[in-house]
Amino acid sequence: MSGNTFGTLFKVSTFGESHGPAIGGVIDGCPAGIELDLEAIQKDLDRRKPGQSAIVTQRKEPDEVTFFSGLFEGKTTGTPIGYAIHNTNQKSKDYSHIQDTYRPSHADYVYDEKYGIRDYRGGGRSSARETASRVVAGAIAKQFLAPVTLNAYVSAVGSLSLDTHPSEVDVSSIEKNPVRCPDPKVAEAMETYIKQIRKEGDTVGGVVSCIIKNVPVGLGEPAFDKLHAELGKAMLSINAVKGFEYGSGFAGTQMKGSEHNDLFNTDGTTQTNRSGGIQGGISNGMDIYFNVAFKPVATIMQNQETINSKREAVAMQGKGRHDPCVVPRAVPIVEAMAALVLADFSLLKRTNKI
Amino acid sequence: MSGNTFGTLFKVSTFGESHGPAIGGVIDGCPAGIELDLEAIQKDLDRRKPGQSAIVTQRKEPDEVTFFSGLFEGKTTGTPIGYAIHNTNQKSKDYSHIQDTYRPSHADYVYDEKYGIRDYRGGGRSSARETASRVVAGAIAKQFLAPVTLNAYVSAVGSLSLDTHPSEVDVSSIEKNPVRCPDPKVAEAMETYIKQIRKEGDTVGGVVSCIIKNVPVGLGEPAFDKLHAELGKAMLSINAVKGFEYGSGFAGTQMKGSEHNDLFNTDGTTQTNRSGGIQGGISNGMDIYFNVAFKPVATIMQNQETINSKREAVAMQGKGRHDPCVVPRAVPIVEAMAALVLADFSLLKRTNKI
Amino acid sequence: MSGNTFGTLFKVSTFGESHGPAIGGVIDGCPAGIELDLEAIQKDLDRRKPGQSAIVTQRKEPDEVTFFSGLFEGKTTGTPIGYAIHNTNQKSKDYSHIQDTYRPSHADYVYDEKYGIRDYRGGGRSSARETASRVVAGAIAKQFLAPVTLNAYVSAVGSLSLDTHPSEVDVSSIEKNPVRCPDPKVAEAMETYIKQIRKEGDTVGGVVSCIIKNVPVGLGEPAFDKLHAELGKAMLSINAVKGFEYGSGFAGTQMKGSEHNDLFNTDGTTQTNRSGGIQGGISNGMDIYFNVAFKPVATIMQNQETINSKREAVAMQGKGRHDPCVVPRAVPIVEAMAALVLADFSLLKRTNKI
Amino acid sequence: MSGNTFGTLFKVSTFGESHGPAIGGVIDGCPAGIELDLEAIQKDLDRRKPGQSAIVTQRKEPDEVTFFSGLFEGKTTGTPIGYAIHNTNQKSKDYSHIQDTYRPSHADYVYDEKYGIRDYRGGGRSSARETASRVVAGAIAKQFLAPVTLNAYVSAVGSLSLDTHPSEVDVSSIEKNPVRCPDPKVAEAMETYIKQIRKEGDTVGGVVSCIIKNVPVGLGEPAFDKLHAELGKAMLSINAVKGFEYGSGFAGTQMKGSEHNDLFNTDGTTQTNRSGGIQGGISNGMDIYFNVAFKPVATIMQNQETINSKREAVAMQGKGRHDPCVVPRAVPIVEAMAALVLADFSLLKRTNKI
Repeated sequence: MSGNTFGTLFKVSTFGESHGPAIGGVIDGCPAGIELDLEAIQKDLDRRKPGQSAIVTQRKEPDEVTFFSGLFEGKTTGTPIGYAIHNTNQKSKDYSHIQDTYRPSHADYVYDEKYGIRDYRGGGRSSARETASRVVAGAIAKQFLAPVTLNAYVSAVGSLSLDTHPSEVDVSSIEKNPVRCPDPKVAEAMETYIKQIRKEGDTVGGVVSCIIKNVPVGLGEPAFDKLHAELGKAMLSINAVKGFEYGSGFAGTQMKGSEHNDLFNTDGTTQTNRSGGIQGGISNGMDIYFNVAFKPVATIMQNQETINSKREAVAMQGKGRHDPCVVPRAVPIVEAMAALVLADFSLLKRTNKI
Repeated sequence: MSGNTFGTLFKVSTFGESHGPAIGGVIDGCPAGIELDLEAIQKDLDRRKPGQSAIVTQRKEPDEVTFFSGLFEGKTTGTPIGYAIHNTNQKSKDYSHIQDTYRPSHADYVYDEKYGIRDYRGGGRSSARETASRVVAGAIAKQFLAPVTLNAYVSAVGSLSLDTHPSEVDVSSIEKNPVRCPDPKVAEAMETYIKQIRKEGDTVGGVVSCIIKNVPVGLGEPAFDKLHAELGKAMLSINAVKGFEYGSGFAGTQMKGSEHNDLFNTDGTTQTNRSGGIQGGISNGMDIYFNVAFKPVATIMQNQETINSKREAVAMQGKGRHDPCVVPRAVPIVEAMAALVLADFSLLKRTNKI
Repeated sequence: MSGNTFGTLFKVSTFGESHGPAIGGVIDGCPAGIELDLEAIQKDLDRRKPGQSAIVTQRKEPDEVTFFSGLFEGKTTGTPIGYAIHNTNQKSKDYSHIQDTYRPSHADYVYDEKYGIRDYRGGGRSSARETASRVVAGAIAKQFLAPVTLNAYVSAVGSLSLDTHPSEVDVSSIEKNPVRCPDPKVAEAMETYIKQIRKEGDTVGGVVSCIIKNVPVGLGEPAFDKLHAELGKAMLSINAVKGFEYGSGFAGTQMKGSEHNDLFNTDGTTQTNRSGGIQGGISNGMDIYFNVAFKPVATIMQNQETINSKREAVAMQGKGRHDPCVVPRAVPIVEAMAALVLADFSLLKRTNKI
Repeated sequence: MSGNTFGTLFKVSTFGESHGPAIGGVIDGCPAGIELDLEAIQKDLDRRKPGQSAIVTQRKEPDEVTFFSGLFEGKTTGTPIGYAIHNTNQKSKDYSHIQDTYRPSHADYVYDEKYGIRDYRGGGRSSARETASRVVAGAIAKQFLAPVTLNAYVSAVGSLSLDTHPSEVDVSSIEKNPVRCPDPKVAEAMETYIKQIRKEGDTVGGVVSCIIKNVPVGLGEPAFDKLHAELGKAMLSINAVKGFEYGSGFAGTQMKGSEHNDLFNTDGTTQTNRSGGIQGGISNGMDIYFNVAFKPVATIMQNQETINSKREAVAMQGKGRHDPCVVPRAVPIVEAMAALVLADFSLLKRTNKI
């Protein structure tokens, strides 16, 4: 109820602050009998972890996951999967200078107002470090969902954007560069730009797109829990996200119905896919694709004016390490959250008919 | 679980098909002691109902709500509020021609695949008629939320768009024209365009924006249930919605952090509001604003090729009545869903501290 | 959240006050494709309704259910089933004398303290009239569950009790007498006793037992949502219930493990069934049986001393109509609640394995 | 959904198998600002742990809890509290002899049928070891609830029972003997009896009672989530529980309404308390008391005939360590579950009125 649980049948509850002893979670409702590939889980964590390339924060944190329960002889048992990622890089001193300071466009101020107390070290619970717990759960959901495939990638960094339609993206190219943009040329330009932004001590936003293939017909529930509504919530729950669109999205608002409608083939597939694989909130078997907008992260290495907890104006120095552009590291998080949504609806689909 | 309930503390469960005896709902968790203005509820229903102006569907349906419970001597009692809107315009014959036909970009095909049965009359449960039940619940939520104000309006129809920033919109002008666009000139152009589209037997998409004022600090929960994540889900659950963005939105992805950060004033307000009134998923007391993208509705008055339930190609004639552009009628629905989200978080906020 | 919804997958939300326009509910998550026998639903309502025999309250209320949605051509469609039972016997004047009076062992006092307002007519929401809404949902759940059979019956009225073990009860005899006790002789004694109690203007408690047969193995979830824990909650949520025990129950506490353990047959059944068909919270395929304790209802036709809302001592006259013993009418309610629990777990069971 | 989460606002999700690396949980929704007494939490764990006295299992397990999150500078922060109790006594070899054996009246058989796989070591997830995770959460709930006090105690072991009414029990005497029965003489007889049972290699059941004082008026929700219904579910979810009754309970069924009704005093208290502190599902400010029936645990040190996973008859030797009577160790578990229920409803109560 306080919002640390996601899902209704395949559900994960996460815990943990950026600089506490550990972050982690409990996955409840994961079906029994999945032969878990633990390396694949760690691999997704590695795609998210800090320090993995020259264009992300240089903080070093191995992000190794420890499982406490729910697995036996290599398989899921249907009982809850408890896990933790121990925080090994808890330099609390780094944050003493912001103990009483409300960083602009961060959650410091609202946390203090809401709870009357906050763990200020590294943003505490509001840190994007929390998303590592999601990646673990999502990596398990992916294994449950196979042969459904989920591939996210960077489609824009600032105003540099990829023009390829999601259904035409070569997903095998995504992991070949640190930006995780499937077009090598665009990726190179993005990388250069991010390095420039880093030198300026600044940050820049971007867009992560995702394409999901081999989706069965029938995922998603009418009315409030439409498939794209849950996908939207899932994405908007990721730190720094400002927008979500699927299928034709915002551009589709400018089309006419006669142009936008997806005509059927006689096998039930559609000739076009402006619906983005979802009609009436339910998957129709076509590829699902969507875009997720990330703002430039608020932590910059420049001096800013701000206020403290006494409502006094104070100067804040930019120092330490930062992510000049968060989208490359957000790619596995987008996949994880999408996988959790699909896993949940896959289970729910089993209950639709007698 | 099958997705017909929205909210956790202030929650509504809706029921009803387009051409069944009635639609309606149960609101559970509405606090006791609200003096309900029943006329205000009916007024919101009237803003949504068909036949209200020349640019919406000419179907006539009074949409009068009957309350069964939860009210006593003009006040809410804290017990569940049951209500129904009886369907008075059930021309089932209208739909016999599509009984076995899967209309393009409608939910007919996926319903049949998912449930093995469907009430084909007027789209059954997948009809946007269901949203009338939401408007009732949202109208009650609005009265609970006062003095918070929620004003939605049409900011784009096709490529005709309003440039005014949400915080500068004159909300008193919204209801002065049938398009519900607060700028009379833009509204007029939109109205002319919609009439043109109607003559073509076509439809066009658009954007509804919403501005929420007088929001207390502290609404929204960290991690998965961020305020904007629930708002996004709420909007994406409305029929025909393809995208959601709040604050700086997709445009913000092109900004630098040094430009995007909202610097504080010493009273805790911010000098700019690119955050859209939400930081770290929690309201910060500034205005909340967001955009909702609506596709052109799929029902057009033109002939289309499609398939039937035997997977045969069939011709489908466009006939009857239709909404050339759904956004004017969507305005009260957007407000209703936003009000439900805020009401829910307002109650949850009471539990944050000892 | 305010407790008017039961179930997680097969779930019902009820509404309605004793003397409001109607009571009813919304069933969400009922699988599509059930051919509904509407007469069987009405029959269960008739078993619960007032005025059905000489030993229950003589209030006349037909309790006819109207369905608003979720059914099409005789089958469930998977969409929410909305329904109402209109209140036809709203003699509000009957209750003006207790408007400000807190009846002993009723909910009047706690409602006023909790909500600051209450619909005092006939107990409002706290009236057992609410359970009629449950009977509708339970009757549908029964049809989904077939060939599982659920039979409740009266096993005690005051100190008159039936000695037969639930597994040996002749369920075909239950409905043959107004008490709903399967042993004709015991039933007769109970009936005589209830008539005596009625003459005294008094009430008496009793026990309803229930036997469930043909249960598949695997219903119920470990840890908190054990099958018997949900059954217990379901029963304790019925008005006037003070206790629940299943299998060996309270008497089993006096046994030794060597006597109590149910030894297996080689087909997985057990030689004895002290477990009551449930082991570790999960059904084992043996008969499920349990007892539900009902207190003597608080409404008596005798004068009592009590207080009013100003905390003044007042005399209260017993007048009007009352149920001298509630257990005969509680029988279909117990069945309904048990059916809802089993339907929910039947759906959930589908998600246990890959 | 798979039943490892308890509560809606103050909620705990637990994980862990008897012989896995750790058990633990995540508490979500605990209000911010509670100064946590960590020693009090450990003390409750010590009251539950094995090896604490001569009448419980002699297995040694320190049961020390490690907190991962949610606490800062000694206070709760409102963010989720993650914790683990590492299993230090994982003698997996002990259990190889029962790998394929279904122990009578244990959950082995139903787990295999339900999940197709199970961690057979020490009962895996079905072990009562899971309840240690509940004690942690309950101990925190107790601190939130103060000045409400919750005291459970043993009121029966086999046929040896305590006659004192719960409201007259001297709660300060409970912890003075290993049985946790507040009457020293009865406790001594119980202790002697349990030792006798242990020598026989047998087990015996018993009853735990609980008395809750200083309860505010207004906890519990009408209809399905009545206070006693949630208490009942909470108790029935504890391993080995077969029954629950509150207030007058099963004995109350034999009373007349004129005897059973609790007449009011002019301050809103009642002259008697047969209602057990709850009317209409809502606390009325009087003491809450209830009884919980525990069966004799199924693990006995005697040889038994049973079957294996191939449905073959096999002999099973009783060996190792066991609990001859589980009720003394169940006392803190009963308190913990009751505290979780009250904490949840305490938060929910804040949302009842405008």
